Amino acid sequence: MKKVKIALLGIGTVGGGVWEIFQTNKEEISNNCGCQIEVAKILVKDPAKKRDGSIPQHLFTSNFDDIIKDKEIDMVVEVMGGIEPAKQYILTAIGEGKHIVTANKALLANHGDELLEAAKNKGVKLYYEASVAGGIPIIHAIKESLAGNKIQQIMGILNGTTNYILTKMTKDKVDFSEVLKEAQDKGYAEADPTADVEGYDAAHKLTVLASLAFGASVEFQEVYREGISKITPIDIEYAQELGYAIKLLAIGKEKEGVMELRVHPTFIPESHPLASVNDSFNAVFVKGNAVGDLMFYGRGAGDLPTGSAVVGDIIAIVKDIENVKINGYYAHKKLEKKVKPMGHTEGEYYIRLIVKDKPGVLGAIASLFGKNNVSISSVIQKGEGIPEVSLVFITHFTKEENVQAAINEITNFQAVVELANLIRVENGKKRMGA
Amino acid sequence: MKKVKIALLGIGTVGGGVWEIFQTNKEEISNNCGCQIEVAKILVKDPAKKRDGSIPQHLFTSNFDDIIKDKEIDMVVEVMGGIEPAKQYILTAIGEGKHIVTANKALLANHGDELLEAAKNKGVKLYYEASVAGGIPIIHAIKESLAGNKIQQIMGILNGTTNYILTKMTKDKVDFSEVLKEAQDKGYAEADPTADVEGYDAAHKLTVLASLAFGASVEFQEVYREGISKITPIDIEYAQELGYAIKLLAIGKEKEGVMELRVHPTFIPESHPLASVNDSFNAVFVKGNAVGDLMFYGRGAGDLPTGSAVVGDIIAIVKDIENVKINGYYAHKKLEKKVKPMGHTEGEYYIRLIVKDKPGVLGAIASLFGKNNVSISSVIQKGEGIPEVSLVFITHFTKEENVQAAINEITNFQAVVELANLIRVENGKKRMGA
Repeated sequence: MKKVKIALLGIGTVGGGVWEIFQTNKEEISNNCGCQIEVAKILVKDPAKKRDGSIPQHLFTSNFDDIIKDKEIDMVVEVMGGIEPAKQYILTAIGEGKHIVTANKALLANHGDELLEAAKNKGVKLYYEASVAGGIPIIHAIKESLAGNKIQQIMGILNGTTNYILTKMTKDKVDFSEVLKEAQDKGYAEADPTADVEGYDAAHKLTVLASLAFGASVEFQEVYREGISKITPIDIEYAQELGYAIKLLAIGKEKEGVMELRVHPTFIPESHPLASVNDSFNAVFVKGNAVGDLMFYGRGAGDLPTGSAVVGDIIAIVKDIENVKINGYYAHKKLEKKVKPMGHTEGEYYIRLIVKDKPGVLGAIASLFGKNNVSISSVIQKGEGIPEVSLVFITHFTKEENVQAAINEITNFQAVVELANLIRVENGKKRMGA
Repeated sequence: MKKVKIALLGIGTVGGGVWEIFQTNKEEISNNCGCQIEVAKILVKDPAKKRDGSIPQHLFTSNFDDIIKDKEIDMVVEVMGGIEPAKQYILTAIGEGKHIVTANKALLANHGDELLEAAKNKGVKLYYEASVAGGIPIIHAIKESLAGNKIQQIMGILNGTTNYILTKMTKDKVDFSEVLKEAQDKGYAEADPTADVEGYDAAHKLTVLASLAFGASVEFQEVYREGISKITPIDIEYAQELGYAIKLLAIGKEKEGVMELRVHPTFIPESHPLASVNDSFNAVFVKGNAVGDLMFYGRGAGDLPTGSAVVGDIIAIVKDIENVKINGYYAHKKLEKKVKPMGHTEGEYYIRLIVKDKPGVLGAIASLFGKNNVSISSVIQKGEGIPEVSLVFITHFTKEENVQAAINEITNFQAVVELANLIRVENGKKRMGA
């Protein structure tokens, strides 16, 4: 299998996530792109500094020339952040014909046109999915999947810190400054929170998104920007009374060649999908003239979610370099996987029985569940004094075949009129994401 | 600008949507793919039948050979549905080296491996974004953006008809059969509703998604399938009492080479993002080991949303044929667009004033709003008998500069202590999607 060599500029949060993903998902990644991707160099300030022991020491260099002059390195992945020297490194790498992946929203918002023009002229790719909304593939979607649409509107919750603060203010009815302090103590917010709470971060991301969605040049300075520091629990209470949630939204609209670009706290109806995007989650709502309303929801930050976006871009470029034609089902090879028989699946179960209302019936049924290793978490009985009543059970996490065996015995029990329904419970609260 | 010729097989709902998108978004599409795409032939049973007058009569043919033997046609877009003759047409077109776009989930679920193997061997592309969840770009996301992940779970609301029925049963507390009949009368459900209500349609889509997400062969027959016809308003009521919503979910999980594949009505916690996906909307929830939880939400059916997915695939293939390198910002050319000054934007506004609690204050403030052409939709006054009270207004749809002018006069009014907050309202209920 052919090898493609890449270099990382920086190995902080995002770079560390990228490294971890390449280690953990080695097999999936090779299979998805039909070749091996090797991190051949990592640019750092101080190669001697103590770091993640899984990274071989010889990969570190403090000399950018080691990367730029290595003809075997096809791609430079910029995950160092900041404007300079990131910008100069990227331009130099483009000049050497290397493809670029970057997660740097501030750089793109301020110098995106210049960088992309340079990449276009040199015939290399510059991808930047990770620059907006972390792991959510919104850039790919706008750039490729929605290419047949005229995009009329984008509305995004693009900053996790402010969404976390607003959620907490709403739930606990506490002041902005109190939640901010707590978030800073926990490391969710920066010591200098200005970029997040005053909306600069969201405005950077809106600049990148709007430019793509509307196919125009967008200047960061043209984005209207207002932060959340003036929001009080009183405003949140009024919002709720009126049927709204307050969110920091990044809004881009376009009509007849005129764009609206603004970031500000916003009332949105509680019924709107963005209203229930809570905590540090991000979401982007897009309206296209063909596709209608679309929403993308996920983790907007963090080493692995952002790393996922970076690695997705790296794979896309590698497939292009290697001219891998992917037809959907087919990657490098088909994996051998088995299907689990339904009886072996596990979950919680809602079971509704119609039973004769006689003493001892509940006890007898409960015993039959127990005998089949099905334990019960809730029971509801309604409608006393009528001859036939509904008896509703929610089970604990258990095996489907145990439930079926119990049901088989229970429905043969003379006091049970019928099994009115059995419905599976997914993502039960106690096992979110199981 | 170069021209690429394509042929449509069929011009029903989806084909009509594709045609309309090419007419309406001609400029955007050319700009996004750097060439002109021309629908050169349309295969129909009866070319003489009366149809959409915007389609030139000479495009229609009932002879597949007219398409297959036309060397200028690079791509065949199958939007006729059904297994045969769609399958044979696609295989023949692949044999002639033509690229394929299809929206046919039943065909893919039953013969996907065979078709994709044929495309792979011939070196042509076969794209099928529209086959699952209409306009939601879930296939592109799994295939490309999440290529660095090991996908652990997919859970989707993949059938709009059943989601509409369950939503209606929940809101109106009426029986399945009653809602089904109403949906049939309105044309939302088929005369023979089996494919939808018994979960076959969702199982077809799960087959396609799971095959991609888990990189394995998935047989449609291996998917456990149960429909919604046994769900009653009583079960929905119990679900709500216990904190759940009932949804028809298509669930795929994978662990250590063993897949779970099942379609059945499911209890999901009300706090889960899928629980609030209502009416005919679709959504897909994906869990990757790097990206974490992601959700995609949108229109799962309809001419334009499904057409959007088909056109996205067509553009992706055309860009590949023409070797168009897209760097995100840059397509064919940058459009000239202006930014609207903030004062010219329009919306509704939440305005909270602190005022002295004296007779006539509300009237005076209301007059100042009126004088500046700001009309008020709600007023809330709280805290009587204290010297300074909050006065909250929600305006009707109005211009930002009118609101700012009104606020300027109001805050100069002696009974007004301060403007405590002004927050913009987006997607006000009266103007959803404005």
